[in-house]
Amino acid sequence: MKKAVLAYSGGLDTSYSLVNLTKEQGMEVHTVIVNTGGFSDEELKQIEKRSYELGSKRHETIDVTDKFYQNCLRYLIYGNILKNNTYPLSVSAERMFQSIAIAEYAKEIDAEYIVHGSTGAGNDQIRFDVAFAVISPKSKIITPIRDEKLSRQQEVDYLQKNGVDMNWEKAKYSINKGIWGTSVGGVETLSSDKALPEEAYPTPLSETQPSVIEIEFNKGEPVGLNGERMNSVQLIQKLNKIGGKYAIGRDIHVGDTILGIKGRVGFEAPAPMLIIKAHHLLEKHTLSRWQLLHKDSLANWYGTLLHEAQYLDPVMRDLEAFLESSQKHVTGKVKIQLTPYHFNMIGIQSPYDMMQSKVAVYGEENDAWDSRDARGFIKIFGNQLKIYHSFDNNDPS
Amino acid sequence: MKKAVLAYSGGLDTSYSLVNLTKEQGMEVHTVIVNTGGFSDEELKQIEKRSYELGSKRHETIDVTDKFYQNCLRYLIYGNILKNNTYPLSVSAERMFQSIAIAEYAKEIDAEYIVHGSTGAGNDQIRFDVAFAVISPKSKIITPIRDEKLSRQQEVDYLQKNGVDMNWEKAKYSINKGIWGTSVGGVETLSSDKALPEEAYPTPLSETQPSVIEIEFNKGEPVGLNGERMNSVQLIQKLNKIGGKYAIGRDIHVGDTILGIKGRVGFEAPAPMLIIKAHHLLEKHTLSRWQLLHKDSLANWYGTLLHEAQYLDPVMRDLEAFLESSQKHVTGKVKIQLTPYHFNMIGIQSPYDMMQSKVAVYGEENDAWDSRDARGFIKIFGNQLKIYHSFDNNDPS
Amino acid sequence: MKKAVLAYSGGLDTSYSLVNLTKEQGMEVHTVIVNTGGFSDEELKQIEKRSYELGSKRHETIDVTDKFYQNCLRYLIYGNILKNNTYPLSVSAERMFQSIAIAEYAKEIDAEYIVHGSTGAGNDQIRFDVAFAVISPKSKIITPIRDEKLSRQQEVDYLQKNGVDMNWEKAKYSINKGIWGTSVGGVETLSSDKALPEEAYPTPLSETQPSVIEIEFNKGEPVGLNGERMNSVQLIQKLNKIGGKYAIGRDIHVGDTILGIKGRVGFEAPAPMLIIKAHHLLEKHTLSRWQLLHKDSLANWYGTLLHEAQYLDPVMRDLEAFLESSQKHVTGKVKIQLTPYHFNMIGIQSPYDMMQSKVAVYGEENDAWDSRDARGFIKIFGNQLKIYHSFDNNDPS
Amino acid sequence: MKKAVLAYSGGLDTSYSLVNLTKEQGMEVHTVIVNTGGFSDEELKQIEKRSYELGSKRHETIDVTDKFYQNCLRYLIYGNILKNNTYPLSVSAERMFQSIAIAEYAKEIDAEYIVHGSTGAGNDQIRFDVAFAVISPKSKIITPIRDEKLSRQQEVDYLQKNGVDMNWEKAKYSINKGIWGTSVGGVETLSSDKALPEEAYPTPLSETQPSVIEIEFNKGEPVGLNGERMNSVQLIQKLNKIGGKYAIGRDIHVGDTILGIKGRVGFEAPAPMLIIKAHHLLEKHTLSRWQLLHKDSLANWYGTLLHEAQYLDPVMRDLEAFLESSQKHVTGKVKIQLTPYHFNMIGIQSPYDMMQSKVAVYGEENDAWDSRDARGFIKIFGNQLKIYHSFDNNDPS
Repeated sequence: MKKAVLAYSGGLDTSYSLVNLTKEQGMEVHTVIVNTGGFSDEELKQIEKRSYELGSKRHETIDVTDKFYQNCLRYLIYGNILKNNTYPLSVSAERMFQSIAIAEYAKEIDAEYIVHGSTGAGNDQIRFDVAFAVISPKSKIITPIRDEKLSRQQEVDYLQKNGVDMNWEKAKYSINKGIWGTSVGGVETLSSDKALPEEAYPTPLSETQPSVIEIEFNKGEPVGLNGERMNSVQLIQKLNKIGGKYAIGRDIHVGDTILGIKGRVGFEAPAPMLIIKAHHLLEKHTLSRWQLLHKDSLANWYGTLLHEAQYLDPVMRDLEAFLESSQKHVTGKVKIQLTPYHFNMIGIQSPYDMMQSKVAVYGEENDAWDSRDARGFIKIFGNQLKIYHSFDNNDPS
Repeated sequence: MKKAVLAYSGGLDTSYSLVNLTKEQGMEVHTVIVNTGGFSDEELKQIEKRSYELGSKRHETIDVTDKFYQNCLRYLIYGNILKNNTYPLSVSAERMFQSIAIAEYAKEIDAEYIVHGSTGAGNDQIRFDVAFAVISPKSKIITPIRDEKLSRQQEVDYLQKNGVDMNWEKAKYSINKGIWGTSVGGVETLSSDKALPEEAYPTPLSETQPSVIEIEFNKGEPVGLNGERMNSVQLIQKLNKIGGKYAIGRDIHVGDTILGIKGRVGFEAPAPMLIIKAHHLLEKHTLSRWQLLHKDSLANWYGTLLHEAQYLDPVMRDLEAFLESSQKHVTGKVKIQLTPYHFNMIGIQSPYDMMQSKVAVYGEENDAWDSRDARGFIKIFGNQLKIYHSFDNNDPS
Repeated sequence: MKKAVLAYSGGLDTSYSLVNLTKEQGMEVHTVIVNTGGFSDEELKQIEKRSYELGSKRHETIDVTDKFYQNCLRYLIYGNILKNNTYPLSVSAERMFQSIAIAEYAKEIDAEYIVHGSTGAGNDQIRFDVAFAVISPKSKIITPIRDEKLSRQQEVDYLQKNGVDMNWEKAKYSINKGIWGTSVGGVETLSSDKALPEEAYPTPLSETQPSVIEIEFNKGEPVGLNGERMNSVQLIQKLNKIGGKYAIGRDIHVGDTILGIKGRVGFEAPAPMLIIKAHHLLEKHTLSRWQLLHKDSLANWYGTLLHEAQYLDPVMRDLEAFLESSQKHVTGKVKIQLTPYHFNMIGIQSPYDMMQSKVAVYGEENDAWDSRDARGFIKIFGNQLKIYHSFDNNDPS
Repeated sequence: MKKAVLAYSGGLDTSYSLVNLTKEQGMEVHTVIVNTGGFSDEELKQIEKRSYELGSKRHETIDVTDKFYQNCLRYLIYGNILKNNTYPLSVSAERMFQSIAIAEYAKEIDAEYIVHGSTGAGNDQIRFDVAFAVISPKSKIITPIRDEKLSRQQEVDYLQKNGVDMNWEKAKYSINKGIWGTSVGGVETLSSDKALPEEAYPTPLSETQPSVIEIEFNKGEPVGLNGERMNSVQLIQKLNKIGGKYAIGRDIHVGDTILGIKGRVGFEAPAPMLIIKAHHLLEKHTLSRWQLLHKDSLANWYGTLLHEAQYLDPVMRDLEAFLESSQKHVTGKVKIQLTPYHFNMIGIQSPYDMMQSKVAVYGEENDAWDSRDARGFIKIFGNQLKIYHSFDNNDPS
């Protein structure tokens, strides 16, 4: 019997695929769901239950949240990465790790086929196909939804015909929840000129009283919240709750897809926004000018390539090596004020704070140099400009 | 008689310099103040009056606001330039243009000396010295404050002894007002861990009712506000007033000075923040992926070099050529919601909006490609990764 | 009758396509050959003759050599562009301009079809397909060779059956001659470890006596050779002859194709190598440090995107604006010694030579600064390093 | 008695400094010479002997050649670094390591003073001053030559008066020999338009018979020569001898000094040129496209910052982490043909050669994709260009 691994989410498309492959193709379908921190235990149990009801030979729930943090989110923090200066790459990053975990599972159980439910119109198919082909090159890729181009109704009808009578009602907004942010698509995001209404965001504003939080970093990693040390994954989840109450971290991302066309998606990502902005502020105090300059442009590339399904390119490991090396001094505490929809950096404390150095303090007399030194510095500093412009006056051309 | 041009602000340091050079050195001092949009007519008249009282041979007010916009601010907008992702370069940019205008004036009137009142501890001395040496290389640079290292009190005493009995009380915060932002330094900004209090900001919150504005851009330049076409300089000034009422665009910048040490400064810059964020959003809809990627990193450099007194380096002209070329399609309208301390992008309209193309729309079935094309695309797209990782399994080393 | 434009080279593949489309599909085939400086008049006449013999409705020879220089080669010179520090992009660049010219012609005559003879295995199909789809979006693209996957013998047989009895013997090496270099592929270039033998290069070594040439540049463009002013296109062609006698500019390029796999190709490109190396030397004397730094990395991108069929991306216009702006001072003369297989830069003369400035000369006492200035300069220059490392001694972590 | 550490080379300037500080200032002078592979044992013994004759309290020879390779040259190889695409940074790199070793020694013996013999006109003073101030911040820097501005004759006279009667004849060319290249300055290099004559280069051409060598790399490091495994430092020295006989690796570098003015220097660097070009070729076969692109621009920065005395900036460690990570697959053998003044890459062999992959070979039919895939690939690949240019025809502005 042909063994297939199906990336199963419990939704209509993958449920259709599960039934269809089992019944029509006579395959032995192993369903897999990969949790990167966006599913609750309750949801995972429901999905497992449904998979068996629909004919899964064996259902596997793989939790890669820690791996996702260690091998990806950590670097997004080091790099202060927001795609187009807005989007924390919530879905792009997590889908990659789901794809990889599924491919590894397929390889492990020696699956002849590997199946995903994406259409031919979006980015996800690329992340799945690429990870599958690279990691489990012997498994053939099957994509019923992409190939058969069925309508929602046709899928529902097929399932009903096969005795599956579940509720497949389509939500007004398409929501994808993950540890690094929840995306919200639909209605207004299909236009260019409309904002998402308050009610489109899953987490409503529930706290209006301002408060102050403190995030502690150790070599670039968030390790403490309000004085309490904790695991970074837990910290992110806790911070998502706190920030979510203030409706912090909402925005709309407009960007290029791998397919070359522009797309627009709303999101709420309280923890990513708070952590990245706090981390960046700490870096401004502790990194050298050259580090700040080069990190910026490299981190932009890291985010772009991650978004574009290039996570497995070896250059990503090289960029990670750079980013990790840069965090040696990024240790300290950052205070932030939270208010509804908004937050403000208050300031930082760090043993490596270059602003509070004994060598010199900006704008003050000091022992590091005197006015005569400054004069000399500027004279030589301006040498090349003087030379370049010395040709201007009697232009020889 | 030795002719000197003095960059005169009306403050204690330059007043001391004016009297001292006239009386002790017997110089003929020509005072100049350069307006880049931060001074009112009233203030300029006061400064002129005072200069003559203190012995200026001739006082000149040079308005370079339009030039400043044309030769600098325009590019900061094209590049969405915020130093360290925060600071619109308010002072750094304007000081450069003041330095250049003074140097050109000194050259024009053939001044033997050229004088500024900066100390040896900050960035401004560098901008002055470099511009003076490059543009008016024959004028010798004199810097009484930097060289004599007098205390405030010593300067006041000297002036009193010379019959000048004005009020030189020092403000709690040092404020520098310009069209591209007002900087606020002192007290808390000398620490790393404290925010500026509400009252430190010159423009108080005075409007709490949310409202929506619309900025219109033509090839990257802001040319209309709320449906009314206007000159970009006027638009910026008007927008500063509107945004200022909401206390929008306040933040604290932490960054590297040219002297190699870190500094921290507060600022309020409503118009720059609104314009840059709106402009950036419009670009996300109208520029190609490659343009967005390369603009980001080049604009970062433009801002850095401008900040570091390199405005006269020819590479700045090259970067400007790039930035200007990139704006061909950056035409359209951007709607923004203003609320106290905060604003949200609503959306854009543009004839060049690549998201609303007839060729293809993200996530939808379309005529541009079908699922078979997508499969082929991804296959070839993943070629290099497949090849690279094909060595992994039987590692030959 | 269906009108088709065929990119016709006179070779087996496009001859097959011409006959096949005319006879089997009943199309009215308009053949076009685009000269970018690689074809002689004699060759073009032969190709025209053959096209009519094989059934072309109308044959057009379009010469875009000047346009190719103006819109592309000029920028490759400004940017000193050698892909992977080796390859002047001889074929990649010219194929793009041929594709564009053919697409423009198809659009002009309102052709329903547009045909090229490339296979599905290489880069050229991408350049053709992209240019055709962008510039003449209404023309459908037909690619008989790619789609039918015929062997050479099958094509020859088909042509013979249709009364075409020409000599289609395959050369040992596949040669593509252009103004910006001649590529040589086959036999050894299919391996990774073998060099091309002497006889594989079309232009044999014929001059062993060393000589000195002088190239004159005006704002980055080559405008004079050995004291004689001439048109840049003529200059390149003349220089190819001179350098070719010395077998200068031969090498093997190894690089990434757009399809993600690596390829290897030999080439001879005397004029490009001589011009680029001379131009770069002149730049080292006349550009600022910042210009040199940024030009390098941008030019690398220009070459990469050109190679990868992205010439029509608007970012290319932006990069060109940067490159053109940078050439303001790149005026002067460069002397080069030619010897067999090799050349040496002797030196340059330029009115903008920053090394021969009156302001200061390296390593000599001068008026621009004294030892006290140098001491001050270095003190402040080292500030940030001193601060950063001041934490090392009593590491607080 | 005041303890001073003097960077002693045995030349006139440092000999003058040694005698002067001992006799006039009554200092206890500890002389140090740091070998980075450029001095023979014989030379080092001579220098030691002379130092004691001139009054050194204690002379120390510190060999940092292995450290220099491990902490610097290795990265120059990984990055294929040639400043301005020409200069292997021979002197710039080695001077930095000498400065650091001297500063560490001064700190270790708790020297109150630290002395170097550079003038105020060049780059070396900056490397010395910066390394001294960062690593041994408590030692005061003394620079007799820079401060006293004596002529050569005045120094000779002073030494003679103090009983030192050595031969201080100045050579026609100033030579600095190191493991990573020998620099040659003087006469022609002071002009912009003259080449160095044959006799200016220390190593004469002595071999005219072509030969083939093979360099073996392991993860980017050169580890074997002509089939024999050896330590990388030994390999470099051996290769310098072999290449030197062919007069390979000679050129003239024109570049920016840290002081902002342009300088020109000749050099011979056979091993660096052969290793870098061979290493780069191996990378073209084994690195991904993205690695090649990003390495290029980062390596350029590494070289620039190293040249500009920024070796101690933490960003250099970050760049090294990137470069080291990128070398995982850079393993294999490179064959090179040597001829007088010139060399040619023949080819490479590597277990990671991406050109010889079973997945696909360029230009050939293969299993990785078919013509239908190619068509789909190009369609989607061209999407953004099609969208961007779709506005051209009915330009809405």
